[in-house]
Amino acid sequence: MQDISSILLDLFIIFASAKIAAELFERLRQSAVIGELLVGILIGPYALGLIGSPSAALVQLFQGTETARLALDMVHTTLAELGVIFLLFLTGLETRASDIFRVGGRAAAVALLGVAFPFVMGFLLISLIGRPAVEAVFVATAMVATSVGITARVLRDLGVLASREARIILGAAVIDDILGIMVLTVAQGLGGSGALSLWGLVVLVVQILAFTLFLLLVGTRLIRRYSAHFEYLRMPNSTFVVAVALCLGLAALAGYIGLAAIIGAFLAGMVLAEAKERHRIERHAMGVYEFLVPFFFVITGSMVDWRLFLQPEVLALAGGVIVLAILGKLAGGSLGGLGLAPRTALILGVGMVPRGEVGFIVASLGASIGAIPSDMFSVVIIMSIVTTLVVPPVLKLLFAGHPDTGKTTQGAESDQDDS
Amino acid sequence: MQDISSILLDLFIIFASAKIAAELFERLRQSAVIGELLVGILIGPYALGLIGSPSAALVQLFQGTETARLALDMVHTTLAELGVIFLLFLTGLETRASDIFRVGGRAAAVALLGVAFPFVMGFLLISLIGRPAVEAVFVATAMVATSVGITARVLRDLGVLASREARIILGAAVIDDILGIMVLTVAQGLGGSGALSLWGLVVLVVQILAFTLFLLLVGTRLIRRYSAHFEYLRMPNSTFVVAVALCLGLAALAGYIGLAAIIGAFLAGMVLAEAKERHRIERHAMGVYEFLVPFFFVITGSMVDWRLFLQPEVLALAGGVIVLAILGKLAGGSLGGLGLAPRTALILGVGMVPRGEVGFIVASLGASIGAIPSDMFSVVIIMSIVTTLVVPPVLKLLFAGHPDTGKTTQGAESDQDDS
Repeated sequence: MQDISSILLDLFIIFASAKIAAELFERLRQSAVIGELLVGILIGPYALGLIGSPSAALVQLFQGTETARLALDMVHTTLAELGVIFLLFLTGLETRASDIFRVGGRAAAVALLGVAFPFVMGFLLISLIGRPAVEAVFVATAMVATSVGITARVLRDLGVLASREARIILGAAVIDDILGIMVLTVAQGLGGSGALSLWGLVVLVVQILAFTLFLLLVGTRLIRRYSAHFEYLRMPNSTFVVAVALCLGLAALAGYIGLAAIIGAFLAGMVLAEAKERHRIERHAMGVYEFLVPFFFVITGSMVDWRLFLQPEVLALAGGVIVLAILGKLAGGSLGGLGLAPRTALILGVGMVPRGEVGFIVASLGASIGAIPSDMFSVVIIMSIVTTLVVPPVLKLLFAGHPDTGKTTQGAESDQDDS
Repeated sequence: MQDISSILLDLFIIFASAKIAAELFERLRQSAVIGELLVGILIGPYALGLIGSPSAALVQLFQGTETARLALDMVHTTLAELGVIFLLFLTGLETRASDIFRVGGRAAAVALLGVAFPFVMGFLLISLIGRPAVEAVFVATAMVATSVGITARVLRDLGVLASREARIILGAAVIDDILGIMVLTVAQGLGGSGALSLWGLVVLVVQILAFTLFLLLVGTRLIRRYSAHFEYLRMPNSTFVVAVALCLGLAALAGYIGLAAIIGAFLAGMVLAEAKERHRIERHAMGVYEFLVPFFFVITGSMVDWRLFLQPEVLALAGGVIVLAILGKLAGGSLGGLGLAPRTALILGVGMVPRGEVGFIVASLGASIGAIPSDMFSVVIIMSIVTTLVVPPVLKLLFAGHPDTGKTTQGAESDQDDS
């Protein structure tokens, strides 16, 4: 074992600054996620450099600053990855397969069109400026997935969770999330191989579907039938322990068969959502969530080289991606809401605009396999930030005077909802 | 960010095997901690080698197997350290300063004598076989501290938590823990400087006392007065978040001023034990505990080179250390219980015998600063295992027919007690 007191200081700085930023942004009525990300940029190596610099002892141990920095980066990445795994695990735990199967065609239409429009628009834009296809696919993928956590949080804050619009948006967001994760896995498969082989694509899609359907159809049944048995184990908190083992195991398995690890974690959550004990699992997972998730956002933020935005062409690119990301969801949502009142259709579109953490996840995955260069990484991050920042005030405006406003308790403190 | 799917598999193997071993040992009526440690030996690099081997991608990234192994070791060490930090944090959270100040002279006598005897015996033995003083100090320190978690668990399983003996043992174990941590910090200071400078020793002791007393006297008052304000923060689970920040911050600060990081975590827990919200903090911390703590035990176990026990001289040394570790606590406990019934005095001695995780903590700290060579590391680990294994059956025997037996509910499942 090595002396890691310098790493501990790093971790404290990340955690504390994440939470201070989250608190500030909550008070400014903005998303805490945005605050954590921005503080990551601030304390990262491209700005203040408070984190990520190896200590003298580490440099000596690894016989070189660069290798020591790489090792420290690996520690950060592992914690960030565990954070995002628990984020998706908890999201899955709040997503019941039956809720998905029950949502009507309306939600499915909003989701499918809301995925198709931004993807095609994003792919065309990035291809037209002469970037490689893999890069275009990754940026388009990042433009696809609505962040179900952010959407739900905004609707809750507005007190309109009981409205018809909110139900359609939430149902669509769930389908959208699964579609987004599938698109992401395909993108990752393409990025990994580097070639757009049709056969590889088919195998990958079949793999995703087999893995997903097996877990959703067989896994959920097994859990419904046997989850009570976890309680018979002698170890304390046995249900939570089995849940965490399932989460880590499916994440590792997903990674092993070429899927994204977070798919495994999400599906583990969805399978366990069928257990009678899911609230107990959620309660314990919440502690891990609060502890680990900030590492993902701050460390992702710390990778953003803000100086790139001083270059006019990067700024122009970011502007284009942002406009298309917003227009794509507006078009998808409005078309999916065809036949409803215009305001309702518009609400559906706007409600799907925030990309939040899903955009960051795609960006960091793309960067990790070299599919997204650093300028495009920063573009995707800024797109995720801006789409998340613009939505709350616009939704508030659209819901002004809406008959359902205030039907749900506004701002009720809950142990469970926090993303 | 780097692709860390191979690390995820490592972490899954560690977590799953830890919990399987824990379950097996619980069923064998042994301590789960022992199971986790033994499985660490089994899957570690000296036996099956299931964990700790860098993947081909990592070897390529770090341009060499040794450097990659070192980096992977750093990831393991960080998780193990976070695990032991949360273990001590939760132990602190279950320890109220007032409980310590209230325990009578009896508990203090048992604690002090139970620290003095094993320390002196251990130091003399290791010195007499010709090892350096720093090594003797570390081994003696590992022989000092009773594991309060294991003791409490055994008493609970026997259903005698309400007995007078149990109360004295628990009070003594708390004082013993603090003494042990102070001795450990002194040992670490000596090990770090390498020289037994009297002045350095005085500064260190003053530092420990100042840090400890400031937190216990001023910190507890501040928390009692202001902890309710944490709830006014906008972020969800704000009390837990502040608690974790305090834990990481004090751990890092303790490390920074030359104390052991786990002292900071333990004191953070004790300070927060004064908060009205401590049960809420405990509830959330339990999830992190269940997730991270197994990494500490399995990874510590994986560092044990069992082949050393094939050497007769190591085996003889281990035997000597074990005998003295048991005799020292028996003598201290019995003398401290002078004037009570012989069986009571014997129970006090036996109850203080288990060293459990504290022994491993001392061993891994000693190894991390090079004060303990690998043969002695393994000796200390086996001492911790054996002292923990022998106690439950002996205590059971001594309590047979005891009037208090069964006064507390036996084996009641609790969310909170699990170590």
